[in-house]
Amino acid sequence: MTIKLIGYAASGPTTKVIITLKELGIPYELDPPATYQSLKDDDYIKNKHPFGKMPVLFDGDFRITESRAICRYLASKYQGKYNDTILLPNDVHQASLVDQYISYESFYYDPPLSKIVYQEKVAKKFFDKDPDLEVIKENREELAKVLDVFEKLLEGKEYLNGECSLADLFICPNTYHVYCIDAHSDLWDSRPNVKNWWNRLCNRDSVKTTFEEIKSFWENN
Amino acid sequence: MTIKLIGYAASGPTTKVIITLKELGIPYELDPPATYQSLKDDDYIKNKHPFGKMPVLFDGDFRITESRAICRYLASKYQGKYNDTILLPNDVHQASLVDQYISYESFYYDPPLSKIVYQEKVAKKFFDKDPDLEVIKENREELAKVLDVFEKLLEGKEYLNGECSLADLFICPNTYHVYCIDAHSDLWDSRPNVKNWWNRLCNRDSVKTTFEEIKSFWENN
Ligand SMILES: N[C@@H](CCC(=O)N[C@@H](CS)C(=O)NCC(=O)O)C(=O)O
Ligand SMILES: N[C@@H](CCC(=O)N[C@@H](CS)C(=O)NCC(=O)O)C(=O)O
Repeated sequence: MTIKLIGYAASGPTTKVIITLKELGIPYELDPPATYQSLKDDDYIKNKHPFGKMPVLFDGDFRITESRAICRYLASKYQGKYNDTILLPNDVHQASLVDQYISYESFYYDPPLSKIVYQEKVAKKFFDKDPDLEVIKENREELAKVLDVFEKLLEGKEYLNGECSLADLFICPNTYHVYCIDAHSDLWDSRPNVKNWWNRLCNRDSVKTTFEEIKSFWENN
Repeated sequence: MTIKLIGYAASGPTTKVIITLKELGIPYELDPPATYQSLKDDDYIKNKHPFGKMPVLFDGDFRITESRAICRYLASKYQGKYNDTILLPNDVHQASLVDQYISYESFYYDPPLSKIVYQEKVAKKFFDKDPDLEVIKENREELAKVLDVFEKLLEGKEYLNGECSLADLFICPNTYHVYCIDAHSDLWDSRPNVKNWWNRLCNRDSVKTTFEEIKSFWENN
């Protein structure tokens, strides 16, 4: 049964799923929506995502939406099948700690980060708007506080929960967008544990090759 | 081993956990933080929650933070132990759909709702500020759109995923706060499927008794 992923590499949530698919060695097909606007077509809302978003994953007839839920599905169903990578531990306590870190990613790390991505990348490219410097400043400050906490959480550890898990992979797409802007890379580089963690992530094959896809998407669209 | 929950009933995330504990029939002790400000004490940050938040759950020596991660932990470890209630299906496809609905709750339903809760309840009571009517209006409009989608999702179903799950329970605390304000109850009552779903939730023992705790907290603090 073919796994089909609806989305494209400019979309942070979609690249969360692409990285997870690659980590687990799962074969898949990428099926980009015709246009960004087509996400709001009646047919898309009815048969793909009720809120008109990407990504959406089809595993044969089974449809699932929302990046983090999709990745959890892939790990629960397929990890150990194509390779030995474990992204969601089998032990209930360890799995719950991964959930906790996913929650830190979702509710503390990603919100300021994605607001910076919006101002620095999306506003200009897709809406021809200048970045709002005040919004960038506020969210940089917020993100700096979050990274101070991550610096402590990562003390003596290679990844948030020791071994690499979904929680670490989820931070990659939006971090990449902001880290690549010279004015912001200091946020990660000035904190030794965070810096090493980020470098470790960037050196994983799944992440490295996905960043190349993101880069080429932005260059060619 | 005693389960200890740090938090109190005015906190939406804490009541998500209280409802889950009651649904699963798990005995627990509530341990309210000394003050709201004490969540930012060094000791609290170090030994309880690194971002200075409630709730935090201790299961013997095992500590876990973040309401949704805590509830998933409780369901994964304890469902079926004290009663027959299943909040997270064992089948991987069904479990993944519950995750998807939790994502709808986290990223579409809760954000506008919690902004209304902040303006209508928290700002006045804890910061002696008047509600910002413009913010309330915008978020009501946003929430109305989300509820239109929920109205369709609930067609022919008693709960989001058929049977009651964590996803439905998670919407209860903040919905309660806003539904109890006369000016807002129409958001739920004007949509038949949403209305029936909300009434069904309100009639569950776990939810009903928790709403009484919330009410008495607001009356006595
Ligand atoms: N919570 C969703 C967010 C998905 C999302 O916001 N995707 C964007 C693209 S990056 C989208 O589809 N936006 C279309 C729109 O909001 O109109 C997830 O994690 O999958
Ligand atoms: N994502 C967290 C949110 C927890 C949260 O925001 N709790 C509030 C109380 S309702 C809090 O502790 N606020 C303290 C603060 O932010 O200073 C969860 O779901 O547990």
